[in-house]
Amino acid sequence: MRLPSARTVPISPTEADVLVQRFSVPYEYPVYFTEGVLAPENPTLARALCLQEPNRRHRFAVVLDDGVARAWPSLPTAARAYADHAGDCMQLLSDPLVVPGGETAKNDPQALGRVHAFLDRLGIDRHSFVVVIGGGAVQDMAGYAAATAHRGVRVVRVPTTVLSQADSGVGVKNGVNAFGKKNTLGTFSPPHAVLCDRLFLSTLAPRDLRAGMAEGVKVALVKDPAFFRWICDNKNDLAALERNVVARLVRRSAELHLAHIATSGDPFEQGSARPLDFGHWAAHKLEVMTNHALRHGEAVAIGMALDTLYSKEIGLLGGVACNQIVSLLRSLGYPLWHDAIAKTDASGRPLVLAGLAEFREHLGGELTITLLADIGAGREVHDIDMPTMLRSIDLLLRAGT
Amino acid sequence: MRLPSARTVPISPTEADVLVQRFSVPYEYPVYFTEGVLAPENPTLARALCLQEPNRRHRFAVVLDDGVARAWPSLPTAARAYADHAGDCMQLLSDPLVVPGGETAKNDPQALGRVHAFLDRLGIDRHSFVVVIGGGAVQDMAGYAAATAHRGVRVVRVPTTVLSQADSGVGVKNGVNAFGKKNTLGTFSPPHAVLCDRLFLSTLAPRDLRAGMAEGVKVALVKDPAFFRWICDNKNDLAALERNVVARLVRRSAELHLAHIATSGDPFEQGSARPLDFGHWAAHKLEVMTNHALRHGEAVAIGMALDTLYSKEIGLLGGVACNQIVSLLRSLGYPLWHDAIAKTDASGRPLVLAGLAEFREHLGGELTITLLADIGAGREVHDIDMPTMLRSIDLLLRAGT
Repeated sequence: MRLPSARTVPISPTEADVLVQRFSVPYEYPVYFTEGVLAPENPTLARALCLQEPNRRHRFAVVLDDGVARAWPSLPTAARAYADHAGDCMQLLSDPLVVPGGETAKNDPQALGRVHAFLDRLGIDRHSFVVVIGGGAVQDMAGYAAATAHRGVRVVRVPTTVLSQADSGVGVKNGVNAFGKKNTLGTFSPPHAVLCDRLFLSTLAPRDLRAGMAEGVKVALVKDPAFFRWICDNKNDLAALERNVVARLVRRSAELHLAHIATSGDPFEQGSARPLDFGHWAAHKLEVMTNHALRHGEAVAIGMALDTLYSKEIGLLGGVACNQIVSLLRSLGYPLWHDAIAKTDASGRPLVLAGLAEFREHLGGELTITLLADIGAGREVHDIDMPTMLRSIDLLLRAGT
Repeated sequence: MRLPSARTVPISPTEADVLVQRFSVPYEYPVYFTEGVLAPENPTLARALCLQEPNRRHRFAVVLDDGVARAWPSLPTAARAYADHAGDCMQLLSDPLVVPGGETAKNDPQALGRVHAFLDRLGIDRHSFVVVIGGGAVQDMAGYAAATAHRGVRVVRVPTTVLSQADSGVGVKNGVNAFGKKNTLGTFSPPHAVLCDRLFLSTLAPRDLRAGMAEGVKVALVKDPAFFRWICDNKNDLAALERNVVARLVRRSAELHLAHIATSGDPFEQGSARPLDFGHWAAHKLEVMTNHALRHGEAVAIGMALDTLYSKEIGLLGGVACNQIVSLLRSLGYPLWHDAIAKTDASGRPLVLAGLAEFREHLGGELTITLLADIGAGREVHDIDMPTMLRSIDLLLRAGT
């Protein structure tokens, strides 16, 4: 027998013959919007676990944000009761693993190993579930642990904050911070299902509710002028953190994020473009510079204000739109200035500008920053004019203080 | 404005409304078979780096297996010269990071962090390259590090062993060992390109050449009777480790592995089936039990012999085929017995049988073991009859010693 030489033949001794490997991996997951996921009469969690193999009894464990655990002390009992109630289709393997919430979850180099050890101890396999109940940082950290255990066990996300329900929690990314930078390590791993439970929003601090809404404003600004107008029309209710109006902002924001991932043509971000990261180059840097004294959403509000002013200064965005945006951000109650922005290095250059290089490095390839050509119309640029950016920082100081 | 409620409407207060997220991620990568990838006149590596963005100068770093470094002391200099020669399209950022080869790479909990720190120090971003030169274990460990840095930087694999060129190195998996088990942590991450360089095979120890060929026999047994006949026809040359014949086995084995990944319908193994893991439940366990004194390929040869005998004992496989397989494995020079197989627990049960449960746990879901219905015809079963398996172990003792 002569072995088939397939699609090519060798050309010369140093020329290679080559096989080309091609395949696609399809993903599908539901994002539910509900209230009271652990109320026994709410079928959503049971349904999420039984999406595949509806006739199996699905094993699951819970990783729980300590902030949620404090606000909802009965949660572990409720989870046990829920699992017992739906005992024919689900089996809770242990009490929840409680992990520190907020950015601590992503900064602690031991956190990942603790989740891995928990999953190993329970014998969580590739067909078992990890239900992660918590804010965006806990989703990111525990999601990363789950995505790497056995090369990926099934994750059901229960994001508990406005920020995570409106944005990262419904998406495909996870990660932790390392080497002093945000999201240095992580993967792209679509969840098995997402359950956005508005009940959890009721115990959030006003500051966190407000901060989370910034991602809604962001996606409106780069994608959806009608949504921006709706936010303007409802700015008083939103500023007052009126529960139903905030829930509608969350719902629409999540929907726009999902649509972007599905239709951008680059769900795992292999290119350099990141249209949803409007305002984020400065935001990521400010978070680190302030040791996360600034919430992510607060930093994003400042970053958006800065890039809005810069968009106007370079003549991309009209003055009326610029004023509308800055004014809306102010109406919603965001501080648009933090002294960290003015911090300079020995040469007098603002330290925040290092965020541009770090942003480029994280994405790879060419620097790509989303600015605004109009409300609802993001526009990518590949370089930033430094004198104009410095002037924009000055304008921000005047607008924000 | 009324916010659109998309594809569903709420049904009751505890009923969820739902958005369904759907997308596909396409992958494509070339697998080159060549000789002398670092010879300046060999264009393969430069071509691999320039597959996308042919007009950019691509930044890359090298992670190097210390076994390869010892066998090829001039490799770092050659890499530097190659990069200089093709300096318009590639930029080597540093001397190679040399990491321990063999299973140590995957067992050392610090190894991953060292690669991450190396990539961070060089500012490797999502569009830069990590060229991993080494055996399967180093590919797995460094590939895992690269897959998680910035949520995935580009990897060019240069597998340097028969085992990795014929099997794991051309595939989509990476990982490290943890909690005393193989591949406990890792991801599915297709490489950017694979370069199988037969020059590296010339310095392998005979034991490693032989062990690596076991994966070729395996894929023939479960997929391709014609390839099995070719191996039988060439068994003397293969047993003598004749260079050109070994290279043809590697080439065909790689091709069958690639075809399986692309056409199985489950490239990231979300189901329970693992048809290419014939003989592997026992092999993985024996490797751990012997502290990796058994090479992976050697353990696979034993595992295949055991499951071949078991396939015959349960009446699935004919006696002639069974004898042919066992006889071929013996002709190729594999020991078919290791005293570890006979090791028992306090109750007299062979410890190797714990490999069945661990194999199930790793894959998740139902136990799925591939047996043989014929040469070239794998067949999945979902339970193992213990008395028959114990009898098969006895038969193996007689066949293998």
